[in-house]
This record gives sequence, structure tokens and C-alpha cells, in this order.
Amino acid sequence: MKAVMTRVGLFGKYGDRGGRELLQRLYALLEARALEITVEEDTAAALDLAGVTTCPLDRIGETIDLAIVLGGDGTLLGVARTLAPHHVPMIGVNAGRLGFLADVSTDNIGMINHILDGHYQAEERFLLAATIVRDGQTLVERLALNDAVVNKGELARLIEFETYVDGQLVSGSRADGVIIATPTGSTAYAMSAGGPILHPTLAAIVLVPICPQTLSNRPIVVHSGCRIEIVLVSDQSAHVTFDGQSNFGVRNGDRLIVCRSETPLTLLHPEGRNHYEVLRQKLHWGRRV
Amino acid sequence: MKAVMTRVGLFGKYGDRGGRELLQRLYALLEARALEITVEEDTAAALDLAGVTTCPLDRIGETIDLAIVLGGDGTLLGVARTLAPHHVPMIGVNAGRLGFLADVSTDNIGMINHILDGHYQAEERFLLAATIVRDGQTLVERLALNDAVVNKGELARLIEFETYVDGQLVSGSRADGVIIATPTGSTAYAMSAGGPILHPTLAAIVLVPICPQTLSNRPIVVHSGCRIEIVLVSDQSAHVTFDGQSNFGVRNGDRLIVCRSETPLTLLHPEGRNHYEVLRQKLHWGRRV
Amino acid sequence: MKAVMTRVGLFGKYGDRGGRELLQRLYALLEARALEITVEEDTAAALDLAGVTTCPLDRIGETIDLAIVLGGDGTLLGVARTLAPHHVPMIGVNAGRLGFLADVSTDNIGMINHILDGHYQAEERFLLAATIVRDGQTLVERLALNDAVVNKGELARLIEFETYVDGQLVSGSRADGVIIATPTGSTAYAMSAGGPILHPTLAAIVLVPICPQTLSNRPIVVHSGCRIEIVLVSDQSAHVTFDGQSNFGVRNGDRLIVCRSETPLTLLHPEGRNHYEVLRQKLHWGRRV
Amino acid sequence: MKAVMTRVGLFGKYGDRGGRELLQRLYALLEARALEITVEEDTAAALDLAGVTTCPLDRIGETIDLAIVLGGDGTLLGVARTLAPHHVPMIGVNAGRLGFLADVSTDNIGMINHILDGHYQAEERFLLAATIVRDGQTLVERLALNDAVVNKGELARLIEFETYVDGQLVSGSRADGVIIATPTGSTAYAMSAGGPILHPTLAAIVLVPICPQTLSNRPIVVHSGCRIEIVLVSDQSAHVTFDGQSNFGVRNGDRLIVCRSETPLTLLHPEGRNHYEVLRQKLHWGRRV
Repeated sequence: MKAVMTRVGLFGKYGDRGGRELLQRLYALLEARALEITVEEDTAAALDLAGVTTCPLDRIGETIDLAIVLGGDGTLLGVARTLAPHHVPMIGVNAGRLGFLADVSTDNIGMINHILDGHYQAEERFLLAATIVRDGQTLVERLALNDAVVNKGELARLIEFETYVDGQLVSGSRADGVIIATPTGSTAYAMSAGGPILHPTLAAIVLVPICPQTLSNRPIVVHSGCRIEIVLVSDQSAHVTFDGQSNFGVRNGDRLIVCRSETPLTLLHPEGRNHYEVLRQKLHWGRRV
Repeated sequence: MKAVMTRVGLFGKYGDRGGRELLQRLYALLEARALEITVEEDTAAALDLAGVTTCPLDRIGETIDLAIVLGGDGTLLGVARTLAPHHVPMIGVNAGRLGFLADVSTDNIGMINHILDGHYQAEERFLLAATIVRDGQTLVERLALNDAVVNKGELARLIEFETYVDGQLVSGSRADGVIIATPTGSTAYAMSAGGPILHPTLAAIVLVPICPQTLSNRPIVVHSGCRIEIVLVSDQSAHVTFDGQSNFGVRNGDRLIVCRSETPLTLLHPEGRNHYEVLRQKLHWGRRV
Repeated sequence: MKAVMTRVGLFGKYGDRGGRELLQRLYALLEARALEITVEEDTAAALDLAGVTTCPLDRIGETIDLAIVLGGDGTLLGVARTLAPHHVPMIGVNAGRLGFLADVSTDNIGMINHILDGHYQAEERFLLAATIVRDGQTLVERLALNDAVVNKGELARLIEFETYVDGQLVSGSRADGVIIATPTGSTAYAMSAGGPILHPTLAAIVLVPICPQTLSNRPIVVHSGCRIEIVLVSDQSAHVTFDGQSNFGVRNGDRLIVCRSETPLTLLHPEGRNHYEVLRQKLHWGRRV
Repeated sequence: MKAVMTRVGLFGKYGDRGGRELLQRLYALLEARALEITVEEDTAAALDLAGVTTCPLDRIGETIDLAIVLGGDGTLLGVARTLAPHHVPMIGVNAGRLGFLADVSTDNIGMINHILDGHYQAEERFLLAATIVRDGQTLVERLALNDAVVNKGELARLIEFETYVDGQLVSGSRADGVIIATPTGSTAYAMSAGGPILHPTLAAIVLVPICPQTLSNRPIVVHSGCRIEIVLVSDQSAHVTFDGQSNFGVRNGDRLIVCRSETPLTLLHPEGRNHYEVLRQKLHWGRRV
């Protein structure tokens, strides 16, 4: 994480009028602090203000010390994957349905001033570095903050694959697929498939089968330093998805290799933020009895 | 079920030499009993015998009193859907991996003589009659012995849909999809998705969500006389599958309507067949302690 | 169910002042309709009114045509088991936490007038008739509206037992116990142990293992006409509970035999009552999307 | 772990003739290597040999460098808790049903020579250090290698408790209980209650609710350095168990505090031992496809 945060990037999903007004309020808030503001290029179009400094997403990471991102978890995932390699910390402003990443509410964006005054908790979240290998050649390399998922194709009945951890066979499976999730992703798709909740700072990865054709499968939690490999052994079509946002067709013999990425994402939470309170709210968990 | 069974149809999946030999042994067994044999057209090609009476699958139901089907559960599902409306009972000969439907082993096809001598238990299995409706028009009508499944498309993140039973809203869901399964199907895909096991003769249907984006969903079991309706409320692509074998794209506003089909399938099991013993074998359940 | 309902019984759990006031309001409501009121003996003490007709719980079933019960599901379970053999229908008035049985709210007891005017839906719920047999002798006979449960004793590590349905071995198990639940009970303890939800009018019983020492166990749903037998095969102490309210120690070789009771309970729901709406409220299920 | 292993302790469960013979073979094997052998006092009675050096369990930890334990996981758990504080590594010899800890088979005790020759993999397993506190006073202090469990009493219907991690409220619960398990314990009782499998070397603890009275609960995995606290808030009787082997009654307001114990247990596995292979065997998982 960069020590001084004077160069701030602004990111957002918008289009509608409400989104524009929020972006403009955020811009004004940053301007009032005399910060050096760079607006991500697509965000700038939606912001619709004259005289702002803009930069395309793929280069903005080098020019800023801090990112403020307006959007749901989907938007934050995309920006996070882009910025993590540049060690740019992120503040998420919630305008979506669930908000495990974005914990400043749009009802209270003044909280950002509080954070910029130094009243924050920095929390590191590791990402997955995933590679798809075919015939010994790297086809695709991607980062993922939530998960890498192997899933059967639309017309496939199920897929067969082998799972290896640090070179050791874990199991051969017949299933709809498998989710390899970070603690951050443990409250996303992995949870829908029946996985446990991992505290976000735990150095662990969870493997969750999707609709396995057996009664005897269970989620497995391994150290985040492990090298996980899924080998497709199946004539059925399949595909690999990262954070549910990018998609690649794979075929018999292809390998998905997943390790912890070297550079984590740093989230700046408001002081006093309590992860379990977020869980209780989002998941309708019980309160004090 | 037809009272006299002198006209027997032979069905099988084959292609390889082992399959052909099995078909020929079955044919010889039936011939030795002086039964009137009709071989399904594609099966006849694989059987490779001169002078057999053949009939295409879509007309064979009217000409036979009993079907003997060689194959895994996949093959049996296809034949069952075709023959059930003609009240033709079925004997399954197991040549596949799992065998909840086919309970004569290829190691012991002599068991068929025993069944033909009258030593059998007839068991009725109901099918689902499913309709996809778009803008008030029926798009598709299909039978299913295992299940009707709504599933997200390959590139979709999740789908939204509403579930109605007898016109009453059960829930609105965000999930990968939903399985509507018969008791027969309760040990198939519904089980992979976490559903309970229903005894095959129970007059009930189970609804099992696939990877629901909530912790608070559960399989629901309703009477098989209920009218189940799934309404897609989602811009994401989705598709509907019957017994995992036929596939139809659906879109926002489309309705899948599922009822019990009027004509059940009759399975002829060897006498003394015990469903729980099959479960114990297939699912590695415990035996007597 | 009795055809005419002029003789009404009043039952309630109370003790505190709020409970007494509610009971008095209910009594006044019935008196205003010139009904013949009998107050259950313990209820009468709490009601604290002069000149009321009272009757002990074990005899009241013969003297009334309808029961109005104030309390949570626990209270209703107890009264239901007592009255069902006498064919006395029941109206539940909710003063507890969950209310799958009691669907008149204490905020709106006027609804009872509406029901007494004939605007109701009668719904039959079957009960379990359970017997504990030791060395061929019947030890205990009980009814249960929710469930019969075999559970390990406090100091036991797990118990071993065999499950039979209609005389056929289902499985041998090592587990904390097993729940045999009606559809009514499927939203109670069976749900906590991972069981599916059964529509209350379904003629089915669900068997749900409690913490089975295997990955390959699943809830099973069988016809309510089945005879279910659990045979304890274990030196560990165990006990059997009915509706979580009465408790019997059992030992190696003891048998719990469970069938559907001959006389169902009739619940009188307000017109337009929708079971799925209750589920959505109680279980935080999704609404229309 | 002690650097030199010349003083070996022998432990075993026995009583029957087969157990005695195995113990005698183990003793002879160690004698042949001219090791200094100490036999645990109760084991010595079963061994039934003249002239052996014996020591009671509670003092033997100070006098040996290595423990060889014959028995199932239950026996090993007991010895492990006793020896871990003395840094004595352990070799488990399997004579029981499941064997996640004991990986030398009684069919191949010669493997012990191989291990004593230095061909072993040492693996550290952390233990839990648990305390029960009442009114500010420590009632009980115990170690656990598998789990600390809070469970409802035999006649209780459910218990209410609050869960705290590092002083933060996680949730208030109504349930049969809760399991706090190490990775070692994740394949024991925690698995029966629906928990995930944790790799044995993962620095994590899993909290698994037992039959929670809600649909929205899930196992949570936290760092093993966390301080976990369960506060009983319930008039119902409850008890706390460690490794399923020692049992303490608790009451309203009592606190169970669980941390990672400072001294881990060291297991000596045969070289080439693969944890996933053990899982596949024990849990009937799939092999290479």
C-alpha cells in the first residue's frame, strides 16, 4: 500500500441519473480536499463534468495512490483485479444489492472524509493467479478476487475432472463443476454451492464441488500457499470463469492452475468495521440472544 | 399395463462388440420362448441379424406389450418417455454405471425368463408432463421420467425466477436454476443438488434449487397432483432440460409448467427386489450394524 | 370433524398478565356468540373468572366440538395430541415465536368471529402413532404431531441403530440419532437437522439422520402409510422423544415403531391462508422478483 | 520435538488376546533395536510380560522421547492430549475403525522400523486449549486435539448461546449446540454436523453449528490464533465435551473459551504418506477418472 494518498482515482458504474449525481458528489468531496483526482475514462463519460483529468482503466493503476469505487461487488471486483498489481488500496462505496466489499454507504459518503483523515482499517485480501494450460502452452492468465470456477457447458450433462493440491491427487469427480474460492469469495458463489464461510484474512482457499454426482463429497479448505490444479478429463464441453466475469471454453486435457497472487488487494474500511456484523446483516444471522 | 405380454420389443444401446453379443443373447432368449419379437429400428442395425421384425421408435409403442431395454439409465429414460403413453411395461437390463431403473444384470439375463414366467413385481412410476409457454403460446411439450430443469445459460451469472404451486407463489429466487424431480429422479440430478431421496412409489414431486444465492432455501416436497410453474424473470439467458436429454432456450417471461403425466410407466422388477438394497449399494449406505 | 360447533373449548398458556387479558378477551368473544364454553382446568385458573365451566385436559375432548388454543407451537402440539383422537378441530392463536400451527394473531383475535361464521379452510394433519417395544412388550405408546426422535444420551458418543420401512432394512447407522417427522414437523426439528420441507397435506413421512458418521446419508421421504421401525443396536444410552415434549430412555435391542395415527388433527385456518406465505415470512424466503 | 529418540513409550488398548499379541510384537520390535522402553502402566498390565519398565500415564511424558500408540483414534486422542505438552512425538498403530491419526497398519508393524530408521514425515497438529469460566472463576481447563463441543442436555429442547471471535459477536444462536474443531477434528464430529474438511496443517479453526434452528447458518472458518468464546444464555441444561471424552455440565452465563494450545502434537507418518489418499479411502471419494 502506498504511504501517502494524494492522487485519488474515481471509478463508478452509472449511466442512470442517480449514479451521475453520486459520482458528482464524490468528485466534489475529493475536490474540496484539494486532492489530485484522476477519473477512470468510462466513469468520466458518465460523470459529465468539464475539465477533469481522465485515464483509461488499464493505465490508471500507475498514476494513483488510492481508488474510490462506486458500485456493487461486481464493479469492485473488476477494479480490484486491475489495481491490485499496482498496490493501490481501494475504498468501496455501496450502490448495489450485497456489499461485502463496499462498506461505505451511498447514504453516508461523508464517511470517506473520515477515512481520508486517516481513520481507517487497512485489510489485505489475497487474489488468485489462475492459468489455463493446453498441451503445455499457457492459454490464459487471469487474476480473481472471488473465485475461479470450472463449469459444464450449457448442453453438457456433467463433467469429469481430477483435482490436485501441491501435485497430490485429491479426487476424481463427476459434477457440474468446481469452485476455487478465496475467503473473499467464500460469501459469493461458493456459498451458494454449499461452502463454508472463511474469515477474509484467513490464508486459505476453499474448493467447493458444484452438484457432485456422489453423496460423499465435501468442501475442502487448504492453505492459500497451495498450488491447485484441475484437469478436465471429459469429452463434454466445459468453461472456466474468473469472478463470474470472464469466460473461457476448455476441453479434454486442459488444466486450470490456481495459486495465490503475489500482490494482495488492500481495502480501506471505516474504523470499527466488524466483518461479523456485515455477515449478520447480509445473511440474516441471529443477533445477541 | 397390458394383460398379456406376447409381443415383446427389444431396445438397446450398443455399437461395440460386447453390446451386440448381449443383444443377440437377449434376442435368442426371447426367440426360444416363441414370443413375437419386434426390434427397435436402430437397435436392429446393431443387432445385425437377418430376418428380424423392426419398427421405428416413434411407432413401436403401438405394436408391443412389453419392452426389454438394454442400457444404462440414460437409455432407459429415453425409451420410457416414448413407451409410457402406450402403457407398455418395461424391463431394464443394466449395462451402465448406475442402475436405479435397470435391475436385471447383464451377468444374469436368465432372470428375464423368470420375469416372463410371471415372477415379477410391477411398479408404477409417474412421469412429468411439462410445457414451455411463451406469450400465451405453447412452445414445447415434453414428458420426463426424472426431472425438468431450468438452468442458467453458459455465460449467465445467475437467473431470477418465481416458483408457483397450484397458482400460489412459493418464492422468488436468484439461483443457477431449479430442478423439478419425480421420486425416480430424486436419486439423479436432484440428489447432486442436495435434494432428499423419495421412495419411488411416493405421489410427490421435489423442487430443489441449484446454487441459490441465499442461505435460507431448502428442497420442498409437494403432492404429485400439484401444478408447478416456474416463471423466468431475468434478462440472463436460460434453458430448460428434460431428463438431461433435450434442451430448450428460454427467455424473460417464459413459463415452465409441470404436472404429473396421466399415464405412468410400469417397471417389471424381479421378485424380491428391494429398493433400499439398491440404495445401499449405489450410495454406499451402511448395512446391518 | 364434528359437523356443528356449538361447544367450544378454551386452552391457553398464560400465567403473566398479558396472557390473562388475552384469555379473557377470547372468553368474552365466545360468550358474546352464546356458545357453550368449557375452559380447560389449568387454563381456568389463569383465566381467573367466576362461573366458568371447566374440565380437565384428559376428559375435555369428549365434551367439545371445537378447540381454541392460545399459545406457541409448543402449547398447540400438546393440545393437538390430546384432542385429535376425539375428532375435535382446533384454531391456534399465536402468542409465540414461530407460528406454523397458530395462524390467528393475538393482534387480530376478531378473526375468530370470521372463522366461527364459517369462513375457514379446514386442513387435516396426520399424527404419528409411536410405540416403544422392549423384549416383545409395549413400553410406551404415544402420539406425535411433529416428530418421534431417537437421540443419543448426554454422555454417549454416538448410537448405532437400524432403520426398517415396511419390514425392509433401509440402513444401519452410526449417528447422534434420527428424526421421524410428519409434514407438520418438517419445519421444526427435522429442518434444523437438514431435512426438506414437506407440504403439510402431503401423505408422507421424512426420516432425517442427526449428525450421521458418514458423508453418504440423506433424508428419505416415504409414504405416510409405511411402518417405520428403528432398532437400537448399541451399548450407548439413548432416549426417544415425541414432539420434543415427552422423553423415554431406551437401550440395546429396544424398538421404536412409528405409523400414521388413524385420526388426524383438523386445523381451521382463516380463509385465504397460504402456507407458502407463512414459509416466506418465517424462513426469510424471497418474494416476487 | 525431541532431537534424539532413544527412550520410547508404548501405549495400547487391548484386553483381548489379539491386542496382547500385537503389544508383545511391538515390544519385541523395540527391544530388538536396543531402545530404552517404558510401558504405560495400564498397557503393561495388558502386555503381561515380566521385567518391563512401567510408568503411569500422567508422568510418562517426562521420561520418553517418542510414543508408539496402538489403538483407534479414540485411544490416540487421549494419549496425544497427555503427551503434547511434553513435546513427545507420536506414531499411531491402527487397530480401530477409522484411522486419520494412526497410519501404521497392524498388518505391517515392520513399518515402525522404517520410521525409527529416520524415514518419516513429521507433521505438527495444533491442539485447542479450552477453559470453562463461571462467575469469573476458571472451572475447568482442558486440551483437545479434535474438538470442544457445547451440546444441549438430554432433556433440553435446544440451547441458546452467543459466539464471539476475538471479542466480536459473531451471532446469537438457538441450536442443539456448536462444535469448535481443529483441522484434525474436521474429519470427526464436525464432519457429521456438516462441516468442511480442513487440511491438517492449516492454521484454522472451524465452528460448526449442530442442528441450528434457522436455515441461514453455516460453518465458519477462522484463524487458529483467534480467541473463541461461547456464552451460554439459556435456562436449559447443557454440557461441554472435549474430544468426546470428558464431559462437564454448564449453565446459564457460563463461558467456554477456546484458543490454540502453545505446544502442538507431532505425528510421525511413514514417508510418502498422502493425506488425500487417506480421505479417499475413508470417505469413499472418487479416484482418478
